[in-house]
Amino acid sequence: VAVATADLLERARGGDKRALARVLTVVENDEPGAADVVRRTFPQAGRALVVGVTGPPGGGKSTLVSRLVGAYRESGQRVAVVAVDPSSPFTGGAILGDRIRMQSRALDEGVFIRSMASRGHAGGLARTTARVVSVLDALGTGVVLVETVGVGQEEVEVVRVAGTVALVTVPGLGDDIQAIKAGVLEIADILVVNKSDRPGADETARDLAQMLTLGTPRAGWKPPIVRTTAATGDGTGDLVRAVERHQAWAAESGERERRRADAARIEVEALLRDGLVRRLERRIGGDRVRLAVARVAAREVDPYAAVEELLRDA
Amino acid sequence: VAVATADLLERARGGDKRALARVLTVVENDEPGAADVVRRTFPQAGRALVVGVTGPPGGGKSTLVSRLVGAYRESGQRVAVVAVDPSSPFTGGAILGDRIRMQSRALDEGVFIRSMASRGHAGGLARTTARVVSVLDALGTGVVLVETVGVGQEEVEVVRVAGTVALVTVPGLGDDIQAIKAGVLEIADILVVNKSDRPGADETARDLAQMLTLGTPRAGWKPPIVRTTAATGDGTGDLVRAVERHQAWAAESGERERRRADAARIEVEALLRDGLVRRLERRIGGDRVRLAVARVAAREVDPYAAVEELLRDA
Repeated sequence: VAVATADLLERARGGDKRALARVLTVVENDEPGAADVVRRTFPQAGRALVVGVTGPPGGGKSTLVSRLVGAYRESGQRVAVVAVDPSSPFTGGAILGDRIRMQSRALDEGVFIRSMASRGHAGGLARTTARVVSVLDALGTGVVLVETVGVGQEEVEVVRVAGTVALVTVPGLGDDIQAIKAGVLEIADILVVNKSDRPGADETARDLAQMLTLGTPRAGWKPPIVRTTAATGDGTGDLVRAVERHQAWAAESGERERRRADAARIEVEALLRDGLVRRLERRIGGDRVRLAVARVAAREVDPYAAVEELLRDA
Repeated sequence: VAVATADLLERARGGDKRALARVLTVVENDEPGAADVVRRTFPQAGRALVVGVTGPPGGGKSTLVSRLVGAYRESGQRVAVVAVDPSSPFTGGAILGDRIRMQSRALDEGVFIRSMASRGHAGGLARTTARVVSVLDALGTGVVLVETVGVGQEEVEVVRVAGTVALVTVPGLGDDIQAIKAGVLEIADILVVNKSDRPGADETARDLAQMLTLGTPRAGWKPPIVRTTAATGDGTGDLVRAVERHQAWAAESGERERRRADAARIEVEALLRDGLVRRLERRIGGDRVRLAVARVAAREVDPYAAVEELLRDA
């Protein structure tokens, strides 16, 4: 396993997209060799610019991401898009037709596009996304764009992997969307009003500005509101510059280190939990755990008592 | 603590809403006494009818839930509503103005309404919801309606606590909503087209029926499509009857036992993980874990190696 992995990693680092896709599949599905990949790539990660793009469906995010890919490619760096769709837990993958719009970019040798299935991530979708981003980063990707659809806790967790998060809205989504924005607003470093050639763009920008004044005040960074029209490309440069400014601020203010420390804590704690459970099962046997579950399901014992008993014997 | 809890539980069981609210707060915030509450109530739970109501914002779910409360109250049973809003991870609570519409029901002595804050559930929102539902069930609530807003993984997890899940849509939500429905569709036991007096209700029902044929075939249960107009109350009886039919099928087919076993497994595994981590920290000290996190954040060591080291010394 180890030799095959080293070879695969070398080819992926050299720009072989099929090798890269294979490496990511190993990591995503936690196949044998996944830990080896993480170990080998970990020291080289931490260099890429990671930008999260999130917001409710219908905001034109994929088109905007495609524009960003074009803009970042101008610098000659390799660019990757990781498209995550947590709203589809059972269909096993991204179901957004929008994705097809990225196809023209996919022909570019320096662009790598990954749709992440959202099923089967025992450790959680956010953790898997963070690993995929870390591997892309370590293997020479200069810019990673993480696109998620939706507005729930899961999306918030997924997009935390990014150094800079852009929340994309559009004019005319109506009052229902207001409720959603209030929650996600707090993770946004940049607010984007896309399709800003539509009527109502001024009001949307004004609403966002007002919502910002209501939220928890942040130390040192006021999320700018950027207007884009992804269909024509208008405003893409403004967005890229806003990302640059946020990155500069994050590096200087210590925000970048804070986010990295949070990510490390989540990963270490999760691996620790997994390791402890595996060790317990080795010691007392997986059947003991299954039996305890069955007794709890039958209400013969409460879950606390069942777990205490397992821990006592371990 | 134990004595206070016993007294509180007795008052809650007797119908004292303030005592019940206090008990649920203890459980929700994992305050001292939470484990004691779970232990004491666990044997009595498992009797309530638990119905999940989910769907995208703007579907009129709260009005529909209010109608269901009215319908179930006719049987004289105590009814509780647990309103969960995972889309608001930071604002610390349900932000939906819809909730106010429930107020008239709240004056009814046999109706208990609980809005669950979505922040600060270390064990996950779904786990906390399951505990709150279990406590309500054990303390004499005959029907628990769990309402969630949204369409992501978190909502799916929350609503799994229910024995029957109704997915509420409305005519005219547009193509963007189609993408969302495909994912959540698979957890729905009943499909509700609310606001079905609006134009487009026939098309929405037809679209849903067609989407059902595309999904994974289910053994023995074909989710019915029920039309309601919550504003007038039309169709509430149809929905109640559909829930009854699903409950009868679930009891007979073994589906109910399967769901209970899943819930037990999730709870036992989560408690086991928590217990193992606490024991590890007692043995090697929390500082050791924090140091490992800091070294991973600084990329001095990869997370696997850091965790291996912690486990070796524990």
